[in-house]
Amino acid sequence: MLNKIALEEAWNIPDAGALGGFQPGSLAPKGVIGGDLGANLLDVHGTRLQQMDENGVEFMVLSLVSAGPQGIADKEGAEKLATVGNDALSQEVMKNPSRFAGLASLSMHDPEQAAKELRRCWNELQGFVGVMLNDFQSSGPDGNTMLYYDDPVYDVFWKTAEELNAPVYIHPRSATTEITEKMWKGREHLAFSALGYANRVNMHLLGIITAGVLDRFPKLKLVVGHMGEHIPYDLYRIDHKLNRARFPNMKMRKDRLVRDYFGTQVFITTSGHFSTSALLCAIAEIGVDACMFSIDYPFESIPNGSAWFDEHVENTLNTRDLVKIGRGNALKAFDRLVAGPHGLKELTPSDCQVGGLRMKEGEVEFGLYNKDWSRRLTKS
Amino acid sequence: MLNKIALEEAWNIPDAGALGGFQPGSLAPKGVIGGDLGANLLDVHGTRLQQMDENGVEFMVLSLVSAGPQGIADKEGAEKLATVGNDALSQEVMKNPSRFAGLASLSMHDPEQAAKELRRCWNELQGFVGVMLNDFQSSGPDGNTMLYYDDPVYDVFWKTAEELNAPVYIHPRSATTEITEKMWKGREHLAFSALGYANRVNMHLLGIITAGVLDRFPKLKLVVGHMGEHIPYDLYRIDHKLNRARFPNMKMRKDRLVRDYFGTQVFITTSGHFSTSALLCAIAEIGVDACMFSIDYPFESIPNGSAWFDEHVENTLNTRDLVKIGRGNALKAFDRLVAGPHGLKELTPSDCQVGGLRMKEGEVEFGLYNKDWSRRLTKS
Amino acid sequence: MLNKIALEEAWNIPDAGALGGFQPGSLAPKGVIGGDLGANLLDVHGTRLQQMDENGVEFMVLSLVSAGPQGIADKEGAEKLATVGNDALSQEVMKNPSRFAGLASLSMHDPEQAAKELRRCWNELQGFVGVMLNDFQSSGPDGNTMLYYDDPVYDVFWKTAEELNAPVYIHPRSATTEITEKMWKGREHLAFSALGYANRVNMHLLGIITAGVLDRFPKLKLVVGHMGEHIPYDLYRIDHKLNRARFPNMKMRKDRLVRDYFGTQVFITTSGHFSTSALLCAIAEIGVDACMFSIDYPFESIPNGSAWFDEHVENTLNTRDLVKIGRGNALKAFDRLVAGPHGLKELTPSDCQVGGLRMKEGEVEFGLYNKDWSRRLTKS
Amino acid sequence: MLNKIALEEAWNIPDAGALGGFQPGSLAPKGVIGGDLGANLLDVHGTRLQQMDENGVEFMVLSLVSAGPQGIADKEGAEKLATVGNDALSQEVMKNPSRFAGLASLSMHDPEQAAKELRRCWNELQGFVGVMLNDFQSSGPDGNTMLYYDDPVYDVFWKTAEELNAPVYIHPRSATTEITEKMWKGREHLAFSALGYANRVNMHLLGIITAGVLDRFPKLKLVVGHMGEHIPYDLYRIDHKLNRARFPNMKMRKDRLVRDYFGTQVFITTSGHFSTSALLCAIAEIGVDACMFSIDYPFESIPNGSAWFDEHVENTLNTRDLVKIGRGNALKAFDRLVAGPHGLKELTPSDCQVGGLRMKEGEVEFGLYNKDWSRRLTKS
Repeated sequence: MLNKIALEEAWNIPDAGALGGFQPGSLAPKGVIGGDLGANLLDVHGTRLQQMDENGVEFMVLSLVSAGPQGIADKEGAEKLATVGNDALSQEVMKNPSRFAGLASLSMHDPEQAAKELRRCWNELQGFVGVMLNDFQSSGPDGNTMLYYDDPVYDVFWKTAEELNAPVYIHPRSATTEITEKMWKGREHLAFSALGYANRVNMHLLGIITAGVLDRFPKLKLVVGHMGEHIPYDLYRIDHKLNRARFPNMKMRKDRLVRDYFGTQVFITTSGHFSTSALLCAIAEIGVDACMFSIDYPFESIPNGSAWFDEHVENTLNTRDLVKIGRGNALKAFDRLVAGPHGLKELTPSDCQVGGLRMKEGEVEFGLYNKDWSRRLTKS
Repeated sequence: MLNKIALEEAWNIPDAGALGGFQPGSLAPKGVIGGDLGANLLDVHGTRLQQMDENGVEFMVLSLVSAGPQGIADKEGAEKLATVGNDALSQEVMKNPSRFAGLASLSMHDPEQAAKELRRCWNELQGFVGVMLNDFQSSGPDGNTMLYYDDPVYDVFWKTAEELNAPVYIHPRSATTEITEKMWKGREHLAFSALGYANRVNMHLLGIITAGVLDRFPKLKLVVGHMGEHIPYDLYRIDHKLNRARFPNMKMRKDRLVRDYFGTQVFITTSGHFSTSALLCAIAEIGVDACMFSIDYPFESIPNGSAWFDEHVENTLNTRDLVKIGRGNALKAFDRLVAGPHGLKELTPSDCQVGGLRMKEGEVEFGLYNKDWSRRLTKS
Repeated sequence: MLNKIALEEAWNIPDAGALGGFQPGSLAPKGVIGGDLGANLLDVHGTRLQQMDENGVEFMVLSLVSAGPQGIADKEGAEKLATVGNDALSQEVMKNPSRFAGLASLSMHDPEQAAKELRRCWNELQGFVGVMLNDFQSSGPDGNTMLYYDDPVYDVFWKTAEELNAPVYIHPRSATTEITEKMWKGREHLAFSALGYANRVNMHLLGIITAGVLDRFPKLKLVVGHMGEHIPYDLYRIDHKLNRARFPNMKMRKDRLVRDYFGTQVFITTSGHFSTSALLCAIAEIGVDACMFSIDYPFESIPNGSAWFDEHVENTLNTRDLVKIGRGNALKAFDRLVAGPHGLKELTPSDCQVGGLRMKEGEVEFGLYNKDWSRRLTKS
Repeated sequence: MLNKIALEEAWNIPDAGALGGFQPGSLAPKGVIGGDLGANLLDVHGTRLQQMDENGVEFMVLSLVSAGPQGIADKEGAEKLATVGNDALSQEVMKNPSRFAGLASLSMHDPEQAAKELRRCWNELQGFVGVMLNDFQSSGPDGNTMLYYDDPVYDVFWKTAEELNAPVYIHPRSATTEITEKMWKGREHLAFSALGYANRVNMHLLGIITAGVLDRFPKLKLVVGHMGEHIPYDLYRIDHKLNRARFPNMKMRKDRLVRDYFGTQVFITTSGHFSTSALLCAIAEIGVDACMFSIDYPFESIPNGSAWFDEHVENTLNTRDLVKIGRGNALKAFDRLVAGPHGLKELTPSDCQVGGLRMKEGEVEFGLYNKDWSRRLTKS
């Protein structure tokens, strides 16, 4: 499918390390993904754009790589990284606004300040279409205090995001050293993206929902990646076990289920979880309107995520729903993408070259010896 | 789900037999469905409406029971049944237009006359929202000639249906005596609704599509019941085998697949095929937007079809897509339902009482001992 | 997946035309599939075997191309083609019995003779593991009489097939000229494999089942291709509409549904219908144990069918069920494959190189930059 | 479906509180589930058995309610609760061994002692068919130390479980007070069965698998409930992110994926997660052979779980796979169920009264007015 939009795509500033931001070396041993990762994060208009062109990705929404300001326990340090990052991201995406937009980074130490920085990005800078929050805000002298945004003190921030119609992407991050020591020691291979990321960020997301944030701000939109951080598969059990008599203090509307928020206020993306079975399950549980394509570059490869979507999903799902997931739903959730300077338009399956018989197949036959299916993949 | 709309619901006129129309006795032995079936077909505002109320069916679109005019080989006889039937149906539905509308019956012996009668229903009568055609038109002295509407001579009819924005429901009917004798003898139990109906009407539908009718009339909409008459499951093979080089005379657009018409010009309903697995397959192959709820009363029971949709589908599918299938898509395909005198409105899942926690469950808990799930069904 | 077994794979004898058998030219215009098709049908140990090697197909069960003897209205002619074909097929597969076996062709004019010829193949020839019947037997002076095997006169044949434990593959064929003239004229593109094949052979299969053949011969096994010839998707409706009070003469056991026979006595293959959504629907409706891989070579390409199964199904379905469908179920249904001279063994996913991390990926990583997924397919 | 087997069913001893075991009051406020829960846990042969009879549950495998010995930080206390519990459970199930069996409770403070107690249950007591471990073992002076069984010191225990062919059920439990304080404060409604249980126990299960325990003990079997504690939906991402170059010290076989262990060494049950969509996803990802029915009584109601399986799953899934999940797979995984004193047998769909037309429907019709489907459910 051409004209795909990808929403959870990481980027970094050159001096991230000095500012307390992400350094590739901290994640992975050199020689595996280290060298490339650092370069790939910094690059926007080179290899990244070229791979987008080669793989039918029309547009990427970029965000400062996790944990960003959330990883900085010092208030001023976190705010500085956010500000510097936002200025740089605006500049970067405005070099080519028909292909790129950004999500604002925010320090969440002070909700008022977060709201203010979001307003600055929205009104004084260009190219922002939403917000990226990387799970809890590290805080406290040893960095082990975790600030969660289901606390009513954050309502001032949520109110601003709703007012500006800025969707908030809730992204995972690493655990504190204390939690790591207690729970993940000896199983570090699980603590990151294989399991721990989702296990922690899904608690945060459900905390926000069950605290009634979406009820108090009914136009607010939340987005989570990685096929919903385990939640769609478990929605029956989650709602079933949130017994209102047992938990009378739970603030979510008494006449609502968690399930009810998906598709109108909560959305998921496919970032980094390229499983057709999981996507089909998500579609059944939360509906096509709640699902959006994303890659998670450069932690995932652009060709990999695109090949999955274009070859596997495209041959399993009908074209109308494919185009909703690959593009249309993003334009509805992130409505600033439609206006200038990005100017993205709604497209039909035919526009995106899915369904139908393409020109190059035109005068020949479809089917009996379908050419590209017959060209056997060889595994290396 | 409350507020369901059902689209393929049969009705009959008292003097159908005298006019060459459907007589229950011709279908089934007395004592099985005979007695009830005749009465149920004639009834609109009694048992039918009561069962609609009891089962959350807000609205029924009625049509003269198959084969209707299509079963009458004599041109004048067929036209008379259509006219009489349409007059009667208009009167019947206008007694309660907030609950009922009708599909026009048409003799298809003469395409010009069919178009004219459709205009009469649309402009001079009230309560019509579309057309019902029961497969081929019987013709010829012995009634064994079959007229199919993929013949270019029918373009005048299709043009009118498109101009009026009248969706055309293609419904199955019995085979001619000749075909029955050749193919179904000794296996009459299969010749009707178990298999033969779909085996014949799917050829007719694909004939119309591959003849390019939908290309020449790009706003024309077709509807088929019974979960698509086998087609959604087989779309890959159908398109795969319609090799353009092998069949150069096939008139359908060269850059289109049969698959491409679903959801914009071709729609299916669930009438008489209450299988969750089949519905899930249809959703994957043709998309939620192409699927609409229907029952096929009184050949199916209203409680049976409704219980399937409300208990089984409602507990398998997300509420947004459920409401599209149960109601919303019908309002888009049959847009006269929205205007007066019917005045149907788009509703949310909450309006239709799906999702969420209903009032009666309100202050108590959801889940642990969920009341209605726990009340065990006992099979009689 | 390596070690796949394919069951519905066509082959022809050089002098087919002279004997009234299939001639490629009758099917398709020269230059499209004509030239290749004839050669591909004759070839066993050349291109066919090479493509099997290249695509992980360990074994093919061959059968004389449709309509075979079923297409010959003359009794002696049909019997001669069957006999000559069986002799030739035995010779062919026994040149390489670790890679090939055959299905016996039978004239069905005379059930006793059919049973006798089957016994000859089973006991006097080598390499046969089942039977291939191509829908109805043409008969009568003008060839328009259709003999169906649900007639009790065929019990002598079914009894023999059961006794020998020879599964019977029911394959589609072209309609008679009379039916073609009545139903398919002007829509010949639909009359063949796109729709008509399935529409006719599914009636025949259901005729046999509902006539009680499987009840009288409870060890008899039937196989149909093309993902079940539309039946799995429609099983609810088929059983629902086979009302026992309405059809008291239907001979199938009163306590059985058609659905009940799948997985023990009725099996389907994937031949020529490479749709993942359809396969998932079939798995839900009839179970993994009832589904088997096949290609339909040379009407389908070996790389095409294999790429679908190895790339798409393999990445959607768990490996245990994949291996059942790709191989294991065939060994259970066609148990002669296990004995000499074929000697096929049950294999694990690991044996078939699905699941796990293969050697070549071994010391490197899996995932982050998964190599073969990342190598983008380019459509030509 | 009759003859269902349920595997994750809780039970308690009267003096649990005095021994440091589970007390209902600690879980839920009085008046909601409190009163009943305590009584339901103690009861085996009264209401429980009656509800089993009423709901087609032939057999229950009982286990001491979580956290059992795992919740006791004191070594001697934990061992005492295990011993007392096992003695009592053996007595209880041997009163009616054709309906009940037990899972052994074990203190996991000392792996040698755990192995010894398992041997005692297996060889000296009667009625045990496996082991129940409730996540990590509480330890340390303040109870906040968590012992996980992926530590090589536990190999002596795993070796014994493998030798005895005793499947080990890994069940969730509450978090330590320290983790609760850090992560779940203010969102206690999520900390238990709605989310936290799965979020913690899935780490433990994957810890055991990726530590190579299943490689060192290739006949060892693990079972997890609640539809797999989020894992089946996320298997692609889990395996994708367990990059072997990044995590060279991960001990699991280099040629294996986590996915590969399901169906042979790892199994899931449906306990407390009665979602058809989730079950269908699990079937696709890990296969029917890896899925088993369970309820989670008395935290779930027997009628609720049974109605889901018998009405919803039974009408979505084919009967052969239904019976595997409802019964057959349990007999393979827990093979002591087949031998005396329990003597359970493999049964066909017909034996379990699924599929087919039951006696009471016998002489009348199936379908058109299907009686039990037509009797509308009314929600209270």
